[in-house]
Amino acid sequence: MSDFPNVHKNRSEWINLSHDIRWDDATWILTSAFIIFTMQSGFGLLESGSASVKNEVNIMVKNAVDVLFGGISYWMFGFGFSAWVEGESNQFMGVSHFFFDTDGHGVDGHLFALFFFKTSFATTATTIVSGAMAERTKLEAYILFSFFNTFIYCFPSHWMWRTDHSWFRQLGATDIAGASTVHLVGGVTGLVATVMLGPRTGRFKDKGTASKMGSPTNAVLGLFMLWWGWLGFNCGSTYGIANDKWVLATRSAVATITSSIGGGIVGIALSYVTKKRKFDIVYIINGVLGSLVSITAYCALARPWEGLVIGAVGGGVACLSVPIIEMLRIDDPVSVVPVHCVAAIWGMLSVGLFGEVDELDHILRYPGTNNPAAIKLHIPQKR
Amino acid sequence: MSDFPNVHKNRSEWINLSHDIRWDDATWILTSAFIIFTMQSGFGLLESGSASVKNEVNIMVKNAVDVLFGGISYWMFGFGFSAWVEGESNQFMGVSHFFFDTDGHGVDGHLFALFFFKTSFATTATTIVSGAMAERTKLEAYILFSFFNTFIYCFPSHWMWRTDHSWFRQLGATDIAGASTVHLVGGVTGLVATVMLGPRTGRFKDKGTASKMGSPTNAVLGLFMLWWGWLGFNCGSTYGIANDKWVLATRSAVATITSSIGGGIVGIALSYVTKKRKFDIVYIINGVLGSLVSITAYCALARPWEGLVIGAVGGGVACLSVPIIEMLRIDDPVSVVPVHCVAAIWGMLSVGLFGEVDELDHILRYPGTNNPAAIKLHIPQKR
Amino acid sequence: MSDFPNVHKNRSEWINLSHDIRWDDATWILTSAFIIFTMQSGFGLLESGSASVKNEVNIMVKNAVDVLFGGISYWMFGFGFSAWVEGESNQFMGVSHFFFDTDGHGVDGHLFALFFFKTSFATTATTIVSGAMAERTKLEAYILFSFFNTFIYCFPSHWMWRTDHSWFRQLGATDIAGASTVHLVGGVTGLVATVMLGPRTGRFKDKGTASKMGSPTNAVLGLFMLWWGWLGFNCGSTYGIANDKWVLATRSAVATITSSIGGGIVGIALSYVTKKRKFDIVYIINGVLGSLVSITAYCALARPWEGLVIGAVGGGVACLSVPIIEMLRIDDPVSVVPVHCVAAIWGMLSVGLFGEVDELDHILRYPGTNNPAAIKLHIPQKR
Repeated sequence: MSDFPNVHKNRSEWINLSHDIRWDDATWILTSAFIIFTMQSGFGLLESGSASVKNEVNIMVKNAVDVLFGGISYWMFGFGFSAWVEGESNQFMGVSHFFFDTDGHGVDGHLFALFFFKTSFATTATTIVSGAMAERTKLEAYILFSFFNTFIYCFPSHWMWRTDHSWFRQLGATDIAGASTVHLVGGVTGLVATVMLGPRTGRFKDKGTASKMGSPTNAVLGLFMLWWGWLGFNCGSTYGIANDKWVLATRSAVATITSSIGGGIVGIALSYVTKKRKFDIVYIINGVLGSLVSITAYCALARPWEGLVIGAVGGGVACLSVPIIEMLRIDDPVSVVPVHCVAAIWGMLSVGLFGEVDELDHILRYPGTNNPAAIKLHIPQKR
Repeated sequence: MSDFPNVHKNRSEWINLSHDIRWDDATWILTSAFIIFTMQSGFGLLESGSASVKNEVNIMVKNAVDVLFGGISYWMFGFGFSAWVEGESNQFMGVSHFFFDTDGHGVDGHLFALFFFKTSFATTATTIVSGAMAERTKLEAYILFSFFNTFIYCFPSHWMWRTDHSWFRQLGATDIAGASTVHLVGGVTGLVATVMLGPRTGRFKDKGTASKMGSPTNAVLGLFMLWWGWLGFNCGSTYGIANDKWVLATRSAVATITSSIGGGIVGIALSYVTKKRKFDIVYIINGVLGSLVSITAYCALARPWEGLVIGAVGGGVACLSVPIIEMLRIDDPVSVVPVHCVAAIWGMLSVGLFGEVDELDHILRYPGTNNPAAIKLHIPQKR
Repeated sequence: MSDFPNVHKNRSEWINLSHDIRWDDATWILTSAFIIFTMQSGFGLLESGSASVKNEVNIMVKNAVDVLFGGISYWMFGFGFSAWVEGESNQFMGVSHFFFDTDGHGVDGHLFALFFFKTSFATTATTIVSGAMAERTKLEAYILFSFFNTFIYCFPSHWMWRTDHSWFRQLGATDIAGASTVHLVGGVTGLVATVMLGPRTGRFKDKGTASKMGSPTNAVLGLFMLWWGWLGFNCGSTYGIANDKWVLATRSAVATITSSIGGGIVGIALSYVTKKRKFDIVYIINGVLGSLVSITAYCALARPWEGLVIGAVGGGVACLSVPIIEMLRIDDPVSVVPVHCVAAIWGMLSVGLFGEVDELDHILRYPGTNNPAAIKLHIPQKR
């Protein structure tokens, strides 16, 4: 006798069709994706606040373009390239399910949830790059860029996250919420973009103009939005909440917040030391964001103090990379390379460092999370 | 034997009292309503950013007034007029349950959820109109307006959505999340308001001043907030997540995002063509918002490509209506009439166009959503 | 036979280990905490918008510092002082569980949820004080302050909310979401801080400069953010959604919104009367925020009209206290004392006034909420 009236008769069959996602999971997945979309506003404010006032609107529009042209590209090809759903695919990419649609039998809620969640990730990956191209790109060019850049995101995502084919995963790589697939990819693409574009006019002639922010208040507001958005990003990466996934989601929330605390404090300390007792908000922003990037790979498995350490190092390397990038005369207006590239490399390494801890196996005895590659790898498969 | 310890003994009775809403649904309904309330901030920023700097604060305050005086009006009379709960009512309106309260037996969670969710809708409906009245209304007058405007929203909502009496519904009209009841009503009210108020001083004398935005960055930030808020608005309109409602909610999320993609791209394209290779942010804003309005009627049933098409046309008609409204010398500062009136008409028509598709019946075989009129209408009622 | 495939075999044992929190609750707790963190942005915008333009960024950075140094302090000592988890503790404070960690057995999801949720509260409590110290504090000093202020929050929280030891609770005090522990503590600390710091230079010499806001639009946007964030704050204080908690959460949502309506309307009315038909946004902001503070103690139990009355009085006393604070020559830039101290006192009293109503017992017959002290107190304990 069921405790739940009004529930479908053939529920177990239904759940099979739904690939083990239920309505509790749908609530979590949708809510997380809603929050992830707010990161577009966060990036928009951070970038436009960091640029000169005359380019403010232009940059905000580019973040809209990321959703519009990145989104259509993901619908047309990206979702298929990523091979999230059963279908033809090879080691490199998926080659079916283009122009995402379903046969409309109504039991396709799990596909809609999947597509929506993955779209929020894909458009975020493209947005990262926009920062590196700020103030030097015509909108026509940027539209083409955001359309094609979404492809770039799809291939590594296939290599890392797609269950059976993923060769990164077979090599043992572990990336829970996308330090490599989202941030490292975005950071490297940003590096390529900024080198190709060359520095803004007069950027390396007069030192004073370098760090002139148009609206620092907006930049910090953007930092806040990204910060809270990242909680949805990392916690939502369990892709569901039912069964044991909620334990990983709550753990992820704590590690994300302790990590940002570690990175932010290191950023403030570095600013205080290197800037002669002054607090440079660029250090605070890069410290927090660098730490958030670096915890992304290991978030759902990290203990609170591990989060703090990973974040402190992540925020530190992000802040310390800024003068190096500067020295190399790479014009990176919102520190995309230090934050998304350098900190992501540390984040990926941190899994190898901290993931060996014996505690991990205890957590991993509880499966149920089929997204984070890490967990499948370590499961003893005996319960 | 129950799988759930700590659950009430008389659960099935409880659930009956709760009108089939359970805690899973409550999570979804409350979270959606929280998100819908953020649309007040979105409208506030869009409107204040589009106005001249001196009226910025004034407009923000009006959006607070919408919640304050629209809210008290809805509590006093609106909820009763809408006849959401069993009680005396006629074809035109409900005539009981004024000054919303419950008998306090504690099993009234479903009533609180209902009232809170509907209040978020009602105050949003009033906010739409405020845009059309920007920069020409004294706050005293606006307070009276927002108090009485909430009534206007309640009657069509009763005609469309109240289960047994609704005569729009008996005629076959389908409006899932409020294209007609919220946006068309808001758009028409806005049209009446702006015609009655007359244009702002000097508005049609000097062409240059027309599109001068005080803070375009804030306007785009407002667009973003509305965009993400609309996800809560459309997806939350399933009014619950349990049983099969989650399938409709996820479908709604995808259709809402593909629709906005279609509308935004058309907006950008129209700007590029008509403005001689320039990108006017008014086109982008109206394209995205027009598409969001137009998908509202059909969101939970639309396939992804249907969402894209409906949105593209919706964004297109919104953008193309702007010069017509302009030509008629109607001063509509934030394009309320093109976006909320014209695109809503298309949205309502789109249900008739796309709703005939056979796929639809397959979806509609899964009931459980008692809010969207559409679904009840098509259910074969045989399972 | 279980309705739920893929569910742990030993679920009832698991649930015991998890202290009765399940994944449904985790969704609610995490989502609420995400929303509560956005209140940092809200306070940041309100305070920076209310200050002069030159101090805007500085104030935003202080709100980041609240999370960074308040957060690490809470992780190191605060969580332990509050004694949320079984361990050594006395009437005054907990003395174990410092440097929050778990033994990593993987069944510690309830601990992570608890720590994350409580951290969002603790950092908010510290943020309140920052408003009172605006424009007069060096960042070095503020860092020390935010580190140590988190302790101050932890002791009253232990006295009020910790199940068995709480002596405030034994005296009969009831505070559901923290009117006393968060707001009264924050308000009094703010009062002490502003008296110790003394007024800003020239603050009481020239009357005209007193209410000069740097960015009123940002201040109102901050109000909005706090308003929606408060919904998460009050509703999330059920600390879970399953069983009967959802009834309290929905009731809380309605009372919070009717309360804010009452307070906002009184604020507008008082401005209209005292400022000779002018609408001062400071009155609107203080009216809404004062009402939100005052409903915090009783939110989950208040009937809609009770919320309205409590909020109206709360908004009223907040607005009317501003000139008194002014008269006492206390420089309180964002009205921390009237809003968080005075309105909180009224809020605590209101529980005694309205809590006697017989209706209350009917609600309280449904237990299940183990956070709000109120409920345990009144439960007849016979079912």
